[in-house]
Amino acid sequence: MAARELSVWGWGYADTPEPPQVDSALQSYRFLLGKPNYTLFPPDVAAIARGLRKPRFNLADAPAEVRQICSDDPKTRMRLSYGRSTRDIFRAILGGFSNPPDYVALPRTESDIVALLAWADRTATHVIPVGGGTTVAAGTEPLKGATRVVAVDMTKHFNKVLEANTTDMTALVQGGVTGPGLNTQLRKWGLTLRHFPQAWELATVGGWLATRSGGHYATNLTHIDSFVVSLRIITPRGIIDTLPVPSSGAGPTPDRVFLGSEGILGIVTQCRLRVQHPPQHRVATTLVFPSFAKGSEATRAIVQASLYPAQCRLVDGAESRAYGIGGDVRLDQACLLLGFESAHVGDLETRCMAPAIALARKFGGLVVAPGGTDTESPAADESATFRSSFITVPYLRDALLLRGFWLETFETACSWSRWEELKTGVEAVARERKAVVTTRYTHVYTDGPAMYFTVAFRPSSPNAAISEWNRMKTAFTTCVLDHGGTLTHHHAVGKDLAVFYEREKGAVWTDTVRAIKRHFDPNGIMNPGTVVPVQQSGEGTKSKI
Amino acid sequence: MAARELSVWGWGYADTPEPPQVDSALQSYRFLLGKPNYTLFPPDVAAIARGLRKPRFNLADAPAEVRQICSDDPKTRMRLSYGRSTRDIFRAILGGFSNPPDYVALPRTESDIVALLAWADRTATHVIPVGGGTTVAAGTEPLKGATRVVAVDMTKHFNKVLEANTTDMTALVQGGVTGPGLNTQLRKWGLTLRHFPQAWELATVGGWLATRSGGHYATNLTHIDSFVVSLRIITPRGIIDTLPVPSSGAGPTPDRVFLGSEGILGIVTQCRLRVQHPPQHRVATTLVFPSFAKGSEATRAIVQASLYPAQCRLVDGAESRAYGIGGDVRLDQACLLLGFESAHVGDLETRCMAPAIALARKFGGLVVAPGGTDTESPAADESATFRSSFITVPYLRDALLLRGFWLETFETACSWSRWEELKTGVEAVARERKAVVTTRYTHVYTDGPAMYFTVAFRPSSPNAAISEWNRMKTAFTTCVLDHGGTLTHHHAVGKDLAVFYEREKGAVWTDTVRAIKRHFDPNGIMNPGTVVPVQQSGEGTKSKI
Repeated sequence: MAARELSVWGWGYADTPEPPQVDSALQSYRFLLGKPNYTLFPPDVAAIARGLRKPRFNLADAPAEVRQICSDDPKTRMRLSYGRSTRDIFRAILGGFSNPPDYVALPRTESDIVALLAWADRTATHVIPVGGGTTVAAGTEPLKGATRVVAVDMTKHFNKVLEANTTDMTALVQGGVTGPGLNTQLRKWGLTLRHFPQAWELATVGGWLATRSGGHYATNLTHIDSFVVSLRIITPRGIIDTLPVPSSGAGPTPDRVFLGSEGILGIVTQCRLRVQHPPQHRVATTLVFPSFAKGSEATRAIVQASLYPAQCRLVDGAESRAYGIGGDVRLDQACLLLGFESAHVGDLETRCMAPAIALARKFGGLVVAPGGTDTESPAADESATFRSSFITVPYLRDALLLRGFWLETFETACSWSRWEELKTGVEAVARERKAVVTTRYTHVYTDGPAMYFTVAFRPSSPNAAISEWNRMKTAFTTCVLDHGGTLTHHHAVGKDLAVFYEREKGAVWTDTVRAIKRHFDPNGIMNPGTVVPVQQSGEGTKSKI
Repeated sequence: MAARELSVWGWGYADTPEPPQVDSALQSYRFLLGKPNYTLFPPDVAAIARGLRKPRFNLADAPAEVRQICSDDPKTRMRLSYGRSTRDIFRAILGGFSNPPDYVALPRTESDIVALLAWADRTATHVIPVGGGTTVAAGTEPLKGATRVVAVDMTKHFNKVLEANTTDMTALVQGGVTGPGLNTQLRKWGLTLRHFPQAWELATVGGWLATRSGGHYATNLTHIDSFVVSLRIITPRGIIDTLPVPSSGAGPTPDRVFLGSEGILGIVTQCRLRVQHPPQHRVATTLVFPSFAKGSEATRAIVQASLYPAQCRLVDGAESRAYGIGGDVRLDQACLLLGFESAHVGDLETRCMAPAIALARKFGGLVVAPGGTDTESPAADESATFRSSFITVPYLRDALLLRGFWLETFETACSWSRWEELKTGVEAVARERKAVVTTRYTHVYTDGPAMYFTVAFRPSSPNAAISEWNRMKTAFTTCVLDHGGTLTHHHAVGKDLAVFYEREKGAVWTDTVRAIKRHFDPNGIMNPGTVVPVQQSGEGTKSKI
């Protein structure tokens, strides 16, 4: 909870050293893609801050609360100019920052938020709720062409666990609490959440709800949705506070309209989450398969047998080698990281791991890092290796970006019947554009996997990089949709994918999202252009979502 | 699939004999409530049919498709005058049928439905989608004061399983298929659904989706929601066809707006459901606890340990005796029916049952009907006894209703912290009104149980019965809400509970449901008055949802 400074332009904290893997990663990418075409240097933050566009309006007429909570600090506004996708970091490195929010609000109380929204509604000011600011879909980037923008940073005053109940195993949590803040506070009650999105260190619970984050569990409790008992959200139309019950059968579920709403309806101030006792029992193992396809069949068998592994990540040969799992795994093989955990019932080796391994063996799976609990033999648990790499990767990505390699990820979910054509399609797109792509399953369902792709390419020049990436990204997205995949499994739609939203959901539902937005936000002030594109109305300059 | 005739006034099929338990149940209720005050006889269906109100409008101006699919058959219209709550059956027994739908439409194709909705929209005709017609919340009852009503019976032409995929383990199913129809057809692929609401014999998949039915599984896959991959729904505004993916993170989930929409937005014509191979392994046992509270603690421990029992039903002493489970269980004790099943992995006794029993023993649980698989020793499996009684109960209810006893059920879900005060409150309401109430947990979640109450009382006269029940039901509902329970866990809101909807969800969300309804159904033709009450507009006779 110490006030470490966040990087203005890159991932995470400014004082984080470059990860030790930079050199070996550079070597690998040089081998795969060739010598990089350029080197870049971090932006001169102080100089850019001095020249940053001033707020385009003043707050003289704003109510006292609004004036008290709004800051025009240039560095903060720079930091919130972009999310943290590779394209975002790249634009920041090039010294962009041409469209920062005019102010950053740090609301202290719910009534500050109510006052802020009322004032913004009257003055046609865009309001962008921000958690950790780690969106990789431009979810919190100010809309191009907007003239009045306030970003709302919830991390400063809405960062408490308000209460926890060890009978119901739920906790009432404020929207601006980050992963570490959450777990530190839950520890007082001997509790934990066990939801670890990649941005866990920085992102907030409110952001997780808004973007339907994917976490720790590979099966069953995959999205944050499954942890949410109830939520409280402030919209321009009023406050919604849903009933904290295990499951209501009364009409359409309000929670599911707000989960995934990406700040376009309101600001989540608090929610009640299902929490757990920390696992007392754990087993983990790594299996190697003769091919990704065989590993996929094994993964399917395990999830369809309802064994509910906590970890069940199938990683292709190349990515396994990058992560250092599976020993001498060949590029055409695949590793399955398999793990079970329980807070209450032991014998996981017998009860869970043995039947899962028996299923995996039917598809040629070989145990290469044999089981063992995290606590007893951590070295044997390659899940731990994977997890620490997983958290480091975005820092590594930034280091490589400066050195001329562009790494990015995208994800989807599709049926078991179609994963192979989808993967083949994605690989063809990459090959055509001289990029390399690796694949893993991050989450698995009885009806299909969530596939996660990591792309690396070598832009031809700093000037061409963004357009080269944009073209490739469009090709990837189109390919995913063509093969029956969803636009996103847990990275959200943001502004980057909003133009594709209708392709996934159809025109009738897209209109419905617009109607729901109009209902809560008749003047279109809440994070417009996110999830669904802004529609230009015929009446001139006024744009309507 | 043979065309057995449905009862015009009572539960289920007309040719179903009264269940053998009638005499013993009568004896019990005489002992508990006293001698009944009256006896009734089934209504004279033929006579009532002859005098039934004729359709209030003709179809001369309707398009050909509408004319071809609409029937004014009096018996069918009588049958769809009411749902199948006790109050419904009672009104039918008294010969009510004063407000039947004017026509019953049997659409053959989706274009019939599109034509029907377009015509209804033009002519301000109410459209009520009906599956099995087994609502216990008046969900399909024509609105009082409506002047033009068509019920849409989906069971005749939308009763097919269109395809199944044994890789993805999903099936594409039409909205009008009933439980038996579904499983019979799925058998061709060696598949089954494993979702058995109490009305399974009669109700349809479309009805399950519309009412968020609760099924077989006591944990995890409790509501039909968990089985739905995608759905297709025809609304007055157009067709929505959601993408069949395991899980999309792209914006708010459309499915969750339609699940629980109870026919107020559109008609579900088909959906893709997650299906399974039939269980090859099963274990079941019964434990007796010294009290319901101790049993509740054990149940909580089991569900919070993520053991995922298929069956985990805690039944109080009185109800256990009525169902014939738990042997000589005392009234102040409770039985836990505990069962595990798997299609793929055996050793359930060791892997699942033993740890669950170990947890239960900590709270004084004693195994009284020891484990054994269904197939090996069916006599030992009291779950089977319970299941067969469970299906029979509504027939028994009708038999007792004729003999002067009124049996009804209602259900809720609440947190583990509050179940006891809620149960005590419900019991006090019953005591005050000289009714008896028994309790079971039908489904359990990590944060609380779904509680199911069965009420029996002895109305003072046929004339007073309904108002006596209405007063009691209102007292129960208020009590449940006062103690933090949801309005309904899986019986839906219907028209009966619509006035309480705002109390659970708040004014802002209730307005949102109205806005979503207006979006899909601007003229308010789809099952108005369900979920949310119809609002009388200031402009005179025109009523708006």
